[in-house]
Amino acid sequence: MRILVLGAAGMIGRRLVDRLRAAGTLAGRKIERFVQVDAVAPADVIADIADPGVAAGLASDRPDVIFHLAAVVSGEAEADFDKGYRINLDGTRQLFDAVRKIGDGYRPRLVFTSSIAVFGAPFPEAIGDEFFLTPLTSYGTQKAIGELLLADYSRRGFFDGIGIRLPTICLRPGKPNKAASGFFSGIIREPLAGEEAVLPVAEDVRHWHASPRSAVNFLIHAATIDTARVGHRRNLSMPGLSVTVAEQIAALRRVAGDKVADRIRREPDPVIIKIVEGWARKLDASRAESLGFKAEKSFDEIIRAHIEDELGGKWAA
Amino acid sequence: MRILVLGAAGMIGRRLVDRLRAAGTLAGRKIERFVQVDAVAPADVIADIADPGVAAGLASDRPDVIFHLAAVVSGEAEADFDKGYRINLDGTRQLFDAVRKIGDGYRPRLVFTSSIAVFGAPFPEAIGDEFFLTPLTSYGTQKAIGELLLADYSRRGFFDGIGIRLPTICLRPGKPNKAASGFFSGIIREPLAGEEAVLPVAEDVRHWHASPRSAVNFLIHAATIDTARVGHRRNLSMPGLSVTVAEQIAALRRVAGDKVADRIRREPDPVIIKIVEGWARKLDASRAESLGFKAEKSFDEIIRAHIEDELGGKWAA
Repeated sequence: MRILVLGAAGMIGRRLVDRLRAAGTLAGRKIERFVQVDAVAPADVIADIADPGVAAGLASDRPDVIFHLAAVVSGEAEADFDKGYRINLDGTRQLFDAVRKIGDGYRPRLVFTSSIAVFGAPFPEAIGDEFFLTPLTSYGTQKAIGELLLADYSRRGFFDGIGIRLPTICLRPGKPNKAASGFFSGIIREPLAGEEAVLPVAEDVRHWHASPRSAVNFLIHAATIDTARVGHRRNLSMPGLSVTVAEQIAALRRVAGDKVADRIRREPDPVIIKIVEGWARKLDASRAESLGFKAEKSFDEIIRAHIEDELGGKWAA
Repeated sequence: MRILVLGAAGMIGRRLVDRLRAAGTLAGRKIERFVQVDAVAPADVIADIADPGVAAGLASDRPDVIFHLAAVVSGEAEADFDKGYRINLDGTRQLFDAVRKIGDGYRPRLVFTSSIAVFGAPFPEAIGDEFFLTPLTSYGTQKAIGELLLADYSRRGFFDGIGIRLPTICLRPGKPNKAASGFFSGIIREPLAGEEAVLPVAEDVRHWHASPRSAVNFLIHAATIDTARVGHRRNLSMPGLSVTVAEQIAALRRVAGDKVADRIRREPDPVIIKIVEGWARKLDASRAESLGFKAEKSFDEIIRAHIEDELGGKWAA
């Protein structure tokens, strides 16, 4: 089995690659070849998927499974209109077309990471599986377009696609990135590392989270699932955990103590507040759950997993 | 006021142009300049909007209102994958980008014709205003992507867009085109002209119709409406009439007699049957109705309008 990972240097990409390498198999088949692509190191191929010929070159190797995680994140896609459309829309379409143009019976499994940013307020308390997509960011628009292309290309038999709408990944380890959602992780991660964190929104902001570990589980499950059960509706809202910022902080207080939780400084940011207002607070992911996708049940669990996986069991008390 | 019509040689485009020329004004302002564009005559500019530079040239004239009706129809977009994506997606995006790149405070009203083909079965008996888009044709996919782009470009202030999801236009006058929906008009139009018509689907097929006259009304209303009332959700399902093929034929029988209605020959076509199965049967257009969009209330009314407008009051009895 040959596997291609686009966006392999990203936080989820690296964890996916590590997990697959450790397993050595996917869907019961031995992994014989692994190609990791990203615009930045570490990767086997350093390339911009929107550049001419790049996607065609990658597809020509006929990977059995393609994980397409490459994207410009929400804050950057909002700040740089051209770059967001070039990578998130044109890059995705070029990949899809490169696979299509091989023809000759080639029909790989293609797992596309979409996002809850495809939904825009106002929406119901829990966004159902049949709720319409009215993104309020360019990033969400680009992901929604990717979903539509994925469904059409799958329907026409060019590949066997599945789109997974990831919750906000929390706790995101490592350095902050340019995503507007970064603070949801930052207010937990930085205090655990002994540093001050900035909370740019009100504590009653409710949002939809899943851990990096769950995200990798989703990707692997999407790569192995029987798509006959999925039908033409190829894009699924992944399960997650709906919590307020106050509940996140309370969990941090329970797990790591007052001193850690007191390292959060409130500093409202009107730009972030406006973006986050348009975001989903909770999803009804029953369709994905019925297809076997699973996530965490408490935010304490998410924090403890972070302490174990990323901090070697210790934090800056 | 300057007006640009893309797809001006099409059936709706010509009727829109005629109506506006006769009125001489739009939104209470005198029409000073009119540019009609199409890939075929009659048009002031014969051009393919997906060709490089065409959209930029048209936008450079800074029209106040742009009607974007140009499209490859559903049957053709399904048969010719590349052509459908090139005109319906790339052409639309190039137009939107050409307007965006002018900048300098230029922000025209842009009316985009979408379609009920953005919806795909299974769906509820009446498709609500918040139902998700799961098109089952490439044409529907391309229109859904156009809707997403329109909303994002409008949100970012590049133009003031409004997307209208037209019902199937019935009765479509003139020659049959390649649209898979053509028979809905053909089974009425051909018998009224003394010719035999082919019905390729079962009589219990239910569908969502509006007359050419209503379609032109929708376009003009969309060009003049206060978009502050529309908000970020820029795409609206237009009102229409939900009838079965049997109800269409009964109306024809009532209006024009048995001899006319007996000119319909049943000849099932598996390709058409499959496409039509995925189409909407009825829409809940309450949002558009609350914004002042109006359609016919009976199919008899639609047939009589056709006889008056297109046949000079007479038919082949």
